[in-house]
Amino acid sequence: MNLKAEHCSQIENALSAVAEKAKSGINHFYFVACGGSQAFMMPVQYMFDREITIPASIYTANEFNYGLPKDFGERSVVITCSHSGNTPETVSAAEKASKAGAVSIALSNKEDSPLWQAAKYPIHYDHGPDAAVADKSKSVLYALAFGILKIVAEEQSAKWESGIRALDALERATNCAAEKYKSAAEAWGKKNRRDTIIYTMGSGASYGEMYSFSACLLMEMQWLHSSCIHSGEYFHGPFEITDYDVSFVIALGNGATRYLDERALAFCKKFSDNVFVIDEAEFDMSGIDEEVREYYAPLIAGSVVRKMVDSLAYERGHPLSVRRYMWQMEY
Amino acid sequence: MNLKAEHCSQIENALSAVAEKAKSGINHFYFVACGGSQAFMMPVQYMFDREITIPASIYTANEFNYGLPKDFGERSVVITCSHSGNTPETVSAAEKASKAGAVSIALSNKEDSPLWQAAKYPIHYDHGPDAAVADKSKSVLYALAFGILKIVAEEQSAKWESGIRALDALERATNCAAEKYKSAAEAWGKKNRRDTIIYTMGSGASYGEMYSFSACLLMEMQWLHSSCIHSGEYFHGPFEITDYDVSFVIALGNGATRYLDERALAFCKKFSDNVFVIDEAEFDMSGIDEEVREYYAPLIAGSVVRKMVDSLAYERGHPLSVRRYMWQMEY
Repeated sequence: MNLKAEHCSQIENALSAVAEKAKSGINHFYFVACGGSQAFMMPVQYMFDREITIPASIYTANEFNYGLPKDFGERSVVITCSHSGNTPETVSAAEKASKAGAVSIALSNKEDSPLWQAAKYPIHYDHGPDAAVADKSKSVLYALAFGILKIVAEEQSAKWESGIRALDALERATNCAAEKYKSAAEAWGKKNRRDTIIYTMGSGASYGEMYSFSACLLMEMQWLHSSCIHSGEYFHGPFEITDYDVSFVIALGNGATRYLDERALAFCKKFSDNVFVIDEAEFDMSGIDEEVREYYAPLIAGSVVRKMVDSLAYERGHPLSVRRYMWQMEY
Repeated sequence: MNLKAEHCSQIENALSAVAEKAKSGINHFYFVACGGSQAFMMPVQYMFDREITIPASIYTANEFNYGLPKDFGERSVVITCSHSGNTPETVSAAEKASKAGAVSIALSNKEDSPLWQAAKYPIHYDHGPDAAVADKSKSVLYALAFGILKIVAEEQSAKWESGIRALDALERATNCAAEKYKSAAEAWGKKNRRDTIIYTMGSGASYGEMYSFSACLLMEMQWLHSSCIHSGEYFHGPFEITDYDVSFVIALGNGATRYLDERALAFCKKFSDNVFVIDEAEFDMSGIDEEVREYYAPLIAGSVVRKMVDSLAYERGHPLSVRRYMWQMEY
């Protein structure tokens, strides 16, 4: 694992606290954040749900703060995330966790931010074009997540080591996927530049990536109408809006719930002429062991999504950095 | 509680099984269904999350079937629901639960349906214009849910009795709300009849009602573009699509998470001229004790939603019963 020493030591501190808490029994893992930071932790919540018997739940921060779950308390581990470290709802959740005596871990790009102060175990990640993939948010989160699994899983499994080792292969896999989808992503941006609504679909480990595609990239950064439909829910209501001119993007997972995505895709493409598929099973994932590929696939899909949205923003002349409300006013 | 003897005895059978399982310890409650039936159980999942320490999770059925959670097993209670009793995904989940030795409870309008056969403890509910509110799906679900709380809650609370007693007041409260919102709902249908996209928003106990409004009533039954935004997530991406001509419907909860809804509303109505508010705090909830009003409010809000959609369907000349895919083909 090629993380910076500083990041490694912050992760180690958090893991020591988890190990200490595990001695008397951890009752619940809570993932708490807002928007993109919440979506970013969704695959880990899914992974915990699949791999360990300790319950793992995910909340948008104020739903957690105002509707505090009964099971939350000093036996809990709460993992928060805010890029700027000053999302008030998330800061408040980290404070609640620290105050309750839970293991309060926070991920942020900003040291000494309010979130950094609120959590007992803050972990920094790098960001930007010059940052190494190994030190960016996704790597840091996965190093933490697989480290936790190693501590709390009932069965010791080679999987946890595989999960940590895979971090070394992430940069290459991400670049491969971005390269593979480059021209298709560019064409997609051009084709969809006059669309007013774009649906995204996914399930399992990839639902979160499709949720942030919809809520953060399309709605927030492109002011486009959008909704993320769970592939399993598509047939139970939403599919009636499918039509030849309705735009869909579907992530075909490479893991347990792939059938849900395949079924939604098979139907969707019968009635829509505008379906874009991100097929995670076709990613070159060399260096990532089979048994953890499901969990890594959405991280790699993220690089494809980014190419798509970059193209869309360019074709629409609407930079991804423009906001009309966020950063412009108090709310 | 004025439920029919047949429904009472089916609920009692399920509760006996829960009580028996509780002796050796229930590890997890799973609510598993699709579309409207999943949405219908969301307030109960929220209530369990707030009231008991045993974890409670909710899944669209195939996400559960294909991505089976590690904690699921013979110590679990699985509650499924399908109106027709033949939703294959839900039937499969009930079968998995029965086979694993979990307490497998199913709610359905159809006796002897595949779901009825698959679950160990099937419970029937009535449906249609002639059915008494006490025997309809929501009453039956709440009788079951409060019955379970009485058995498994750590603290014995007058709340559980209040929750059961409130069932007797539900019909009156529902009719009052429908009457109160009648003309506003009619005006809403008229005003929104040429809209192509309508957003719904909610949180806490009311999120599910707003989710089914979006996915089942607007998308499925009106073929309208829609998305349900969690009030707590609104500020973290989605709010950038707010504009003077974008239509929103917001449920202002009457419970713990009301602040989230109020905050979203305050912002939304500054920039949209088309915001419809269902204020649950203004419902006449006589006969329903204060401490359970939060959980009953979404059931009552449902009658307002129905009036709104009836009006919209009439104004658009698009009956709620029309489908282009569902019931028309295999998928």
